[in-house]
Amino acid sequence: MMRTRPLKVALLGCGVVGSEVARIMTTHADDLAARIGAPVELAGVAVRRPDRVREGVPAELVTTDATALVKRGDIDVVVEVIGGIEPARTLITTAFEHGASVVSANKALLAQDGAALHAAAEEHGRDLYYEAAVAGAIPLIRPLRESLAGDKVNRVLGIVNGTTNFILDKMDSTGAGYQEALDEATALGYAEADPTADVEGFDAAAKAAILAGIAFHTRVRLDDVYREGMTEVTAADFASAKEMGCTIKLLAICERARDGASVTARVHPAMIPLSHPLASVRGAYNAVFVESDAAGQLMFYGPGAGGSPTASAVLGDLVAVCRNRLSGTTGPGESAYAALPVSPMGDVVTRYHISLDVADKPGVLAQVATVFAEHGVSIDTVRQQGKDGEASLVVVTHRASDAALSGTVEALRKLDTVRGVASIMRVEGE
Amino acid sequence: MMRTRPLKVALLGCGVVGSEVARIMTTHADDLAARIGAPVELAGVAVRRPDRVREGVPAELVTTDATALVKRGDIDVVVEVIGGIEPARTLITTAFEHGASVVSANKALLAQDGAALHAAAEEHGRDLYYEAAVAGAIPLIRPLRESLAGDKVNRVLGIVNGTTNFILDKMDSTGAGYQEALDEATALGYAEADPTADVEGFDAAAKAAILAGIAFHTRVRLDDVYREGMTEVTAADFASAKEMGCTIKLLAICERARDGASVTARVHPAMIPLSHPLASVRGAYNAVFVESDAAGQLMFYGPGAGGSPTASAVLGDLVAVCRNRLSGTTGPGESAYAALPVSPMGDVVTRYHISLDVADKPGVLAQVATVFAEHGVSIDTVRQQGKDGEASLVVVTHRASDAALSGTVEALRKLDTVRGVASIMRVEGE
Repeated sequence: MMRTRPLKVALLGCGVVGSEVARIMTTHADDLAARIGAPVELAGVAVRRPDRVREGVPAELVTTDATALVKRGDIDVVVEVIGGIEPARTLITTAFEHGASVVSANKALLAQDGAALHAAAEEHGRDLYYEAAVAGAIPLIRPLRESLAGDKVNRVLGIVNGTTNFILDKMDSTGAGYQEALDEATALGYAEADPTADVEGFDAAAKAAILAGIAFHTRVRLDDVYREGMTEVTAADFASAKEMGCTIKLLAICERARDGASVTARVHPAMIPLSHPLASVRGAYNAVFVESDAAGQLMFYGPGAGGSPTASAVLGDLVAVCRNRLSGTTGPGESAYAALPVSPMGDVVTRYHISLDVADKPGVLAQVATVFAEHGVSIDTVRQQGKDGEASLVVVTHRASDAALSGTVEALRKLDTVRGVASIMRVEGE
Repeated sequence: MMRTRPLKVALLGCGVVGSEVARIMTTHADDLAARIGAPVELAGVAVRRPDRVREGVPAELVTTDATALVKRGDIDVVVEVIGGIEPARTLITTAFEHGASVVSANKALLAQDGAALHAAAEEHGRDLYYEAAVAGAIPLIRPLRESLAGDKVNRVLGIVNGTTNFILDKMDSTGAGYQEALDEATALGYAEADPTADVEGFDAAAKAAILAGIAFHTRVRLDDVYREGMTEVTAADFASAKEMGCTIKLLAICERARDGASVTARVHPAMIPLSHPLASVRGAYNAVFVESDAAGQLMFYGPGAGGSPTASAVLGDLVAVCRNRLSGTTGPGESAYAALPVSPMGDVVTRYHISLDVADKPGVLAQVATVFAEHGVSIDTVRQQGKDGEASLVVVTHRASDAALSGTVEALRKLDTVRGVASIMRVEGE
């Protein structure tokens, strides 16, 4: 039954992920052929620096002219693992125009231009798959898009950045401060020299946009995602979290509003109860918790980055796309039929943990409580702790909108008796 | 772009799962149509007892003649949620012969006759999907079959039966004995009046056969799966497990041998370390831990049973199968090309925790240790505890074959100084 003409694959990028994709394509060639129904052949590898030795990649396949490679016309599948917006975007579009399907691991590009790329794929009757773009090896795009296709997803709550989870886990388990934990992450290779994309939540926000789009059948762009980094999280926040039976995670949260008429997507640090399955996700692991009408609560857990895990996701897509080529069909494309509006952060409703430094004198609690009440934010618990004329007041609220909470905090800052707002942390997963 | 002629679905069985499938097909008709690209219509519902009122299922669709329904010729997809071997098997085969694709939730049938059913589907160019057959709502078949299609799975370790996990979790958290925990499970509806299929591991064994087949691209039948129930697990076993930093779970374990040349599949209670992600799977939840070459360690978690969760999985398959019908293609069928031999239980290599009741006198430990050594089973730790002329000896071994361990235990039973073998438990997930 096996077709003998091989399917031709062009690889764009041959770094940590690309070289692993090339390696597995060679070492597991027989398995891939059996699973696809035809052999696959690496037809070209586009790189920026051809002088770097790439073990296992035949020198004659290496080129610096990526554009010529995707224009060859005999390429069945282009695997894009360059990352970034350009030249990846133009190369992918050109690949579709020249008849290739595309497998990409490019979260930034998909989050920014997913709709246009999907449209280009559809126009040319080709596939665009990108399981590796979110949470590395963890099968997530396919389960959301296909396994839950008959269900209604209401919330996606994910730890989708390994670097920040490593740092937060370290702070939690050792009591270390942010900088100390970041230094260790850098030393161990979990954080890049410039960790901005990770610690400021840009990486997670791109993944949130992609997940929200798929989960809600709605276009969600990177700009629609509210983003707050985790560089301000302190050891004191972890101590507060522990007192509440919680830990702190940087979460990507995609939610359908309770009335079902809109969605939100956001990334920020949050307290979650230790009993929540996401609380026990350690080190650089990723996990995504999905809540849907019929299935209930699901969780997907695994390594969110790294050459091999990402290559596993790329190759899973490659097999699917190759099978589609052979049967002359395409897999599910973009599903944006629901077209729900994406609400701003002010509309998000959740609970809050607020630490205030206040004057240690009678009447302060009454003043503070009045401000909350005036803004319609209902208080769940208050804990007061005195020390030398100063006191700290820890308020945990019931569910309230982000706008109401912001108004409350602004008013609190104006109180003479409030010396400062030490921290505001959302409480999720309850 | 929407086709207007609806795809016709025949539902076989309208119990807890079937009625939920029918309900969602009605309430979410617009969403399903948008995701499929054509409306889907419930064309008939075959039941045994038509007198039972089924809310939301139009009476004119109900029939007791399932055979006539699948033979109608205008049915695009047959959804089989009857369970059991017959008449389900004949109905599914007949459905293929009359041009329908099939979505099934029938683990027993798939485990026993999966190969023949896949062959029938392929012969007629139709799909056979069964995500709901293993671990309810948890997307597992699709990720294993598609997302990991470019990877090499080495081990699948799963909690795939919610009833037994509920009982074991209860024993662990309350110190209850097996019978007490079973009674509570029965009272709460987690265990059936006759719990044999669950507590003796038959249900988990069927799922292990299906998972092993997909993971290793090899036919694994129910008869190939070693099976041991969990009715003998005692409160004392949990106490021993705690001393080792472990808990006890009923696990379905599918493994590729270290040399890669054979596979095994088994179901039995086992100790796993509390640090293992499966250890924190509580109540009736299911979770499956997958280890592969490139992806590393993945875990899939969620509700393993229940009407709604199972319906979610059925409907995900229904959407996929309907999309395939529209595009005139079929999804991946059986992949058994690797055809690895399935080794017997004696070849399985793991660690063991053995509790012996022995005479409390000098030389017993030396005798016992000699027996282990003679059978080539290396001891990791021994713990001895005396009480009134009797003593207990707890031995934890290094990795050894099941055959070697069985030989050891047989020889130990013959020692005069060994009064009895209180328990033997495998230690997994390390």
